[in-house]
Amino acid sequence: MATHKLLLLPGDGIGPEVMAQVETVVSWFEKRGLAGFAIEKGLVGGCAYDAHKQAISEGDMKLAQDADAVLFGAVGGPKWADVPYQHRPEAGLLRLRKDLGLFANLRPAICYPALASASSLKPEVVEGLDILIVRELTGGVYFGEPKEIVTLEDGSKRGVDTQVYTTPEIDRICRVAFELARTRRNKVSSAEKHNVMKTGVLWKQTVTALHAKDYADVELEHVLADNCAMQLVRWPKQYDVIVTDNLFGDILSDVAAMLTGSLGMLPSASLGAEDAVTGKRKALYEPVHGSAPDIAGKGLANPIAMIGSFAMALRYSFGAIEAADRLEGAIADVLGSGTRTKDIAAPGTNAVSTSEMGAAIVKAL
Amino acid sequence: MATHKLLLLPGDGIGPEVMAQVETVVSWFEKRGLAGFAIEKGLVGGCAYDAHKQAISEGDMKLAQDADAVLFGAVGGPKWADVPYQHRPEAGLLRLRKDLGLFANLRPAICYPALASASSLKPEVVEGLDILIVRELTGGVYFGEPKEIVTLEDGSKRGVDTQVYTTPEIDRICRVAFELARTRRNKVSSAEKHNVMKTGVLWKQTVTALHAKDYADVELEHVLADNCAMQLVRWPKQYDVIVTDNLFGDILSDVAAMLTGSLGMLPSASLGAEDAVTGKRKALYEPVHGSAPDIAGKGLANPIAMIGSFAMALRYSFGAIEAADRLEGAIADVLGSGTRTKDIAAPGTNAVSTSEMGAAIVKAL
Ligand SMILES: CC(C)[C@H](C(=O)O)[C@@H](O)C(=O)O
Ligand SMILES: CC(C)[C@H](C(=O)O)[C@@H](O)C(=O)O
Repeated sequence: MATHKLLLLPGDGIGPEVMAQVETVVSWFEKRGLAGFAIEKGLVGGCAYDAHKQAISEGDMKLAQDADAVLFGAVGGPKWADVPYQHRPEAGLLRLRKDLGLFANLRPAICYPALASASSLKPEVVEGLDILIVRELTGGVYFGEPKEIVTLEDGSKRGVDTQVYTTPEIDRICRVAFELARTRRNKVSSAEKHNVMKTGVLWKQTVTALHAKDYADVELEHVLADNCAMQLVRWPKQYDVIVTDNLFGDILSDVAAMLTGSLGMLPSASLGAEDAVTGKRKALYEPVHGSAPDIAGKGLANPIAMIGSFAMALRYSFGAIEAADRLEGAIADVLGSGTRTKDIAAPGTNAVSTSEMGAAIVKAL
Repeated sequence: MATHKLLLLPGDGIGPEVMAQVETVVSWFEKRGLAGFAIEKGLVGGCAYDAHKQAISEGDMKLAQDADAVLFGAVGGPKWADVPYQHRPEAGLLRLRKDLGLFANLRPAICYPALASASSLKPEVVEGLDILIVRELTGGVYFGEPKEIVTLEDGSKRGVDTQVYTTPEIDRICRVAFELARTRRNKVSSAEKHNVMKTGVLWKQTVTALHAKDYADVELEHVLADNCAMQLVRWPKQYDVIVTDNLFGDILSDVAAMLTGSLGMLPSASLGAEDAVTGKRKALYEPVHGSAPDIAGKGLANPIAMIGSFAMALRYSFGAIEAADRLEGAIADVLGSGTRTKDIAAPGTNAVSTSEMGAAIVKAL
């Protein structure tokens, strides 16, 4: 049995609480002899800054580079509102994404039947929803230079951010989208603003050419990003896979997540390119939700997004498809039996704590 | 009675149909002697390109510069998919915004009680919704330079767009938001991505300083743009005025519009700075919806967003508050009486045509 190198970066806020539940799940798989893990732990975000004045240390970056998969909790909180910009908690996450080359961010938005009523949308609009946002994660306005604030002669200031995309960057993320669409409902919607942005023009041209060359069997549609946000609210079931850039992906995936009414439920995977020699991809798995400092330490957090992120790690990094199916099945069973953390419990009904939810999932395995 | 110079730019698709209904409304006000207009007409978008190979001619730009208000329909359609980038239909609209200095785009999202059931959201989430998005319209990634596609040595291409904001630009749009909030529920939510973008950092600093200096009586909150999109779907009634940049405003206002279930209903105003001498502002009024080429020429379009845009012109450009109230009242009455165009009619119920809706509103005046 292969031993998988797993780095846990719980981070700030509710990160450590939800990560603790993943650890009980990992132990279960280990004890049963179903998988072997060599586990390291590190710091990222505000807690890393507190420890050594950096949002992630060189040592932990090295561990991340060596890991087969990184599990990431969440970062940030009001405590670190005033740390220098380059050391803000998010800088740790952005550095992990960039330095590990995790260009493909997969964000499924699935509406669990048992939870359709938790959505602010009408049940018929979201019931059975299963879409996948494929977000470019190492380019665009997040990383382009110049990115600066300069003081002008008259004392006013000018801020600049630069959105940059090259054809190879667009090509590789769209390939991921087409490949995944083939395993699903075979449709890709490419979202950009070609009517306003040159990167949008290049994006549209590149995805069109790639489609004609290698993926003509997949249905491709182009949608303006503003219209896509609107259509996600109007009738999200029209989509299968949505592929888009870093910034639009940030917003569209949050909209898609909220449709399901269960932000505490949604996992994500960020994948690098396949290594030409080993065939391995670097990978980081994290919940879509944030660090939720307001509820941290209270046992209120829903650990399902974090546990589901581990299920994605089993599937995409460890090739443990059966184990992934089993874990996702356990989550569905627990939900089916009515077990709810506060965020997904109907008002006035009983809710379980973070660790009770974790224990229920382990029991259902 | 003052004569107001009005330029009508119906544009493409359903633009001319909905503009025709505004003309009947304008005539009504003129015949009653309630307002005097000197009306010019021009071309913008694809039809302007067809006529003289430009998305708007110099002559029509001159008319727009001279007008007290421009009424704009919609531009674009598949017919012009392949015109050179600088002449695409949207270029006409972008040039109007930029050259007239229309930095403040006001997009109300109001859920008419009679239409709450048309939304994809649960009625309790949207009933009574009344929020206002104040979008910066002449800066940001829409206009920053460099904005280009270059071919690299290896034959691949690189696209670049540049987001630029200066403190005076941020200051003036936030002032508009604070002033408007004072006439409403006194709350401003400022949306940016200061955790990723330097323009977001500058935006947050600038609005914070302005608030402390001149608007401490207004409640100010900062919200990340991705979270704002999410919150708009979760519980939009938490907002009053949302102020944001050009690109985030494009997306957030589309999400907000879709919440109301009635995209064909929503008007917008784009305003310039007050002239130091005359006290006048340049202004353009347009529906939030697009040119909808699929239904153009069929009498299916809802003219209410266009007519409502004229009501905004009466209010903001002509100081004709009573006339604006009257026109908005007529729209509400017609909706209250159950008159519906197809986009807002319940499935299986009768719908009226574009011109029937226009006539009903004129009758209700
Ligand atoms: C925390 C932040 C930097 C991040 C982003 O903007 O990418 C978050 O919103 C996300 O979507 O993962
Ligand atoms: C037509 C297009 C250029 C425009 C924009 O992106 O601003 C539109 O989407 C809008 O919101 O007015």
